Amino acid sequence: MSTTADIKAKSGLEDVVATSSAICHIDGHEGVLAYCGYDIHDLGQQATFEEVCFLLWHRRLPTRAELGDLQSALVAARPLPEPLLRLMRSLPTRGDGVDGMDALRTLTSALAHFDPAGSAADSPSARYDKAVRLTAQTASIVATWGRMGMGGSPVAPDPALSHAANFLYMLTAERPHATAVRAFDIALVLHADHELNASTFAARVAAATLTDLHSAIVCGIGALKGPLHGGANADVMRMLLEIGEDASDERVESVIRAKLARKEKIAGFGHRVYRTEDPRATHLRRMSRELGERSGQARWFEISQQIEALVRAEKPNLYPNVDFYSASTYYTLGIPIDLFTPIFAVSRVSGWTAHVLEQYANNRLIRPRAEYIGPAYPQTFVPLDRR
Amino acid sequence: MSTTADIKAKSGLEDVVATSSAICHIDGHEGVLAYCGYDIHDLGQQATFEEVCFLLWHRRLPTRAELGDLQSALVAARPLPEPLLRLMRSLPTRGDGVDGMDALRTLTSALAHFDPAGSAADSPSARYDKAVRLTAQTASIVATWGRMGMGGSPVAPDPALSHAANFLYMLTAERPHATAVRAFDIALVLHADHELNASTFAARVAAATLTDLHSAIVCGIGALKGPLHGGANADVMRMLLEIGEDASDERVESVIRAKLARKEKIAGFGHRVYRTEDPRATHLRRMSRELGERSGQARWFEISQQIEALVRAEKPNLYPNVDFYSASTYYTLGIPIDLFTPIFAVSRVSGWTAHVLEQYANNRLIRPRAEYIGPAYPQTFVPLDRR
Repeated sequence: MSTTADIKAKSGLEDVVATSSAICHIDGHEGVLAYCGYDIHDLGQQATFEEVCFLLWHRRLPTRAELGDLQSALVAARPLPEPLLRLMRSLPTRGDGVDGMDALRTLTSALAHFDPAGSAADSPSARYDKAVRLTAQTASIVATWGRMGMGGSPVAPDPALSHAANFLYMLTAERPHATAVRAFDIALVLHADHELNASTFAARVAAATLTDLHSAIVCGIGALKGPLHGGANADVMRMLLEIGEDASDERVESVIRAKLARKEKIAGFGHRVYRTEDPRATHLRRMSRELGERSGQARWFEISQQIEALVRAEKPNLYPNVDFYSASTYYTLGIPIDLFTPIFAVSRVSGWTAHVLEQYANNRLIRPRAEYIGPAYPQTFVPLDRR
Repeated sequence: MSTTADIKAKSGLEDVVATSSAICHIDGHEGVLAYCGYDIHDLGQQATFEEVCFLLWHRRLPTRAELGDLQSALVAARPLPEPLLRLMRSLPTRGDGVDGMDALRTLTSALAHFDPAGSAADSPSARYDKAVRLTAQTASIVATWGRMGMGGSPVAPDPALSHAANFLYMLTAERPHATAVRAFDIALVLHADHELNASTFAARVAAATLTDLHSAIVCGIGALKGPLHGGANADVMRMLLEIGEDASDERVESVIRAKLARKEKIAGFGHRVYRTEDPRATHLRRMSRELGERSGQARWFEISQQIEALVRAEKPNLYPNVDFYSASTYYTLGIPIDLFTPIFAVSRVSGWTAHVLEQYANNRLIRPRAEYIGPAYPQTFVPLDRR
């Protein structure tokens, strides 16, 4: 107990340890990211998104039987309630490139009204089941929203498909190629968790009031939308499109040099925690190249690589982050830009729910203080008719 | 720049100064709360909610002309878009006592789709206008939701009425008495801001990604819902109803002593920051008594007062907080319990928007670190078929 707040943190809580957590380990200097002890490079090469969900929720990899049970539960939760589809159809679109996150926020909030457990259900097992449902349903919402945005009718989920394959199927109404499925699955694995990133932290701050899981996840979505967080992957693609697929190397260089000269932030570069290459960028760069080569659409990768070289030459300590090569990866997979940030949420919901369940299990209200810098106290109140 | 996180904060960020702010000053030891330098006792006695909104948004009290302009803007924003009313009608109710906050979260999120400025609009003036609209519309949503919950049809707002009076009118379809209006107005003033409480902090964490205002406010609503935060006022009333209006003093005593013996948390007591009486409780206690006496429903106040005495005798350092006497105050005003926490939001949206605008004006991403306590790194990845 203290009279006044006694720890003055650095701006943005930089380097402040806000909680302990058994989920994610990051070493920003060594460029290490690990979920529950498993290096992201191993997971990115060998694990599926469903295995990673189990890992984040249970702190260990599943047996085959456990994985089968989880897959069944996810499959069972995929179909969206009919009233939710009606609500989805009724939401207007503006075409300002952020509709997808607005829709995901509203529709995920609306899911709470139809959840079989009710928002007051708060036993650990009821909350775990909600985490599974939310993970399945977030994917169904984003795929169906994307499908309807392209003028198609909603596609019913296919129980035989994996989480990644089913998402692409519900989005495109076509059986996706194995290469596309694996690329998308890896993207989901890479984005699944990242310790106390802003959206996860927002979700934990909400959860620490013991609000329900849907409310906490909606907070995560609201925070992820920002251009300093998940919104950056769409901003990267807008920059690439502004440059243009047919742009010469000279044009790429002049656009980027002009941005650097104006001290504009280049979307997809820099990270609060990493002082070296973001280990997720390594995989996304490779996937962007491979998908580009196989589809004959390699130009987006090449432009991205040229931008990286230009930025790095000018600012040797500025590295591409998870958003930079995910932009060309998703675009090459045929995914509309409006879905880039929602797809981030389709993956990160696994980490948000893991963190929220961890917060519930050992909870304390998260309530910092502010340093007051406003008009001196006390001000004399002058009634309105004498002002 | 540091290798690893270097400030290990106390659990729940207790006493950590997360940001500076010109909005709210709290001295937890002296029991002082002030908005922009004005003591809550002065504001509670002399200011209207509209004046407080202006104060929080501009850091000074309005002139009569400025207040008139703000009132006009709030009045203009009161009517809800027709699709929002349709959505409201389509949301199921469960009767589990938390529907109101679920509905407010979903409907406030949905407002973004119909906002005239669009969610990409991010100039300071566009954001200020959104803050005004959100403040007016939150009240319209909660009043209309409450009206429909009582089986009534939506009531169109009355431009001639103040924010507080119009809320009660839209809720009850009757012209409220001056006493009820003033009591409700004071309740709105007392709940308007409270520095970095959990919901405001959640809203600022979201805003610091530069997400839009609607997203940030939805985060605030999601966090306020929790029983360790705004949800407590409804929990207080449930406790009072469980005891019963006709309960003898002996029964009140035995219920409370049994709770204390079981070390149960008594809803409406204790606060992270105050080490003395919550200055808001002083006013709410008085209002609860006055409204009880005038309405002939004084028993809820008396029971509350008896509970306070019992708790204080047992735990001299545990004081009633803002939620304790607001429960009997709202109940005596004829407001259904399901609306208690949403009404907290009707007021706090003024503080949330003030903090979010302040965050935007001098932004840095809020991104703390976690201390990793999970399985040791690196774990060897064993493929599924060998587990």
